[in-house]
Amino acid sequence: MAGSETKERKILVAVDEGEESSYALSWCLNNIVAENSKDTLILLYSKQPPPLYPAMDGTGYVFSTDVIASMEKYGNELAESVMEKAKKLCKEVHDVKVETRVECGDPRDVICKTAEKLGVDMVVMGSHGYGMIKRAFLGSVSNHCAQNVKCPVLIAKRPKSAAPST
Amino acid sequence: MAGSETKERKILVAVDEGEESSYALSWCLNNIVAENSKDTLILLYSKQPPPLYPAMDGTGYVFSTDVIASMEKYGNELAESVMEKAKKLCKEVHDVKVETRVECGDPRDVICKTAEKLGVDMVVMGSHGYGMIKRAFLGSVSNHCAQNVKCPVLIAKRPKSAAPST
Repeated sequence: MAGSETKERKILVAVDEGEESSYALSWCLNNIVAENSKDTLILLYSKQPPPLYPAMDGTGYVFSTDVIASMEKYGNELAESVMEKAKKLCKEVHDVKVETRVECGDPRDVICKTAEKLGVDMVVMGSHGYGMIKRAFLGSVSNHCAQNVKCPVLIAKRPKSAAPST
Repeated sequence: MAGSETKERKILVAVDEGEESSYALSWCLNNIVAENSKDTLILLYSKQPPPLYPAMDGTGYVFSTDVIASMEKYGNELAESVMEKAKKLCKEVHDVKVETRVECGDPRDVICKTAEKLGVDMVVMGSHGYGMIKRAFLGSVSNHCAQNVKCPVLIAKRPKSAAPST
């Protein structure tokens, strides 16, 4: 792209467990990031916040601290595995500077806040960050970000032909 | 970007009268299109369809053919002026191959259908294609396209600092 060799752009890529986000990252590496560019990819993963259970007077059902610890451990391992996969993908395409960030919270807030805080030049994300049901209730993550992030947002949709044949 | 010199990408850029779309085009030229690339920019303008007035039995108010002709002329001139401005912007940044298309209809349908018909690699658009009131009724053009276009969609939002000081 014009003058890309001299510009130092910060590109925030929202990553999650889904194939759609891997596709978005891969598309970004192949179409946006220049070979030998000074771009920095910031891989951002939004982790579910740890469950908070105030004293319950209803069902009285409370997770034991063991269960909560297990859930947190699982969350951390998931974040780590998503990041490892994303970093591997980056290395496979070309040697771009990569930073990783794991933040707790709703991906819609996390992406918007992080984009603003870091003053990124662009946000890249897949078009589906939630399952169908959750999306119906909470709205689309990508729609929310496209409306609220102040910089350009690229929403990548995995072509049907690239879907696994299962 | 990786291998951009050899790829022949088709990038559809939705243009309209708004500053937001000029910003999107300019951002695309500076950040997506490579110098000496084989990319083709397809500038797409959605023109209001000509008004259709079937026999009215209510108010009996009908536009004369003269008025309709004037409206069509205005629409064509507007389309031409938007395209000229967009082509000038392209030339100013770098000498990329540009095609222009003017289609009649709701921009949401026009953008989605044209993207599909031409099999473009990417759609670039501003985040506001309608005024506030119309958007409230019809929904955002960019949201609709991000959900329905099958290829990646880049939604560019003009930074507040770039807004005219009027």
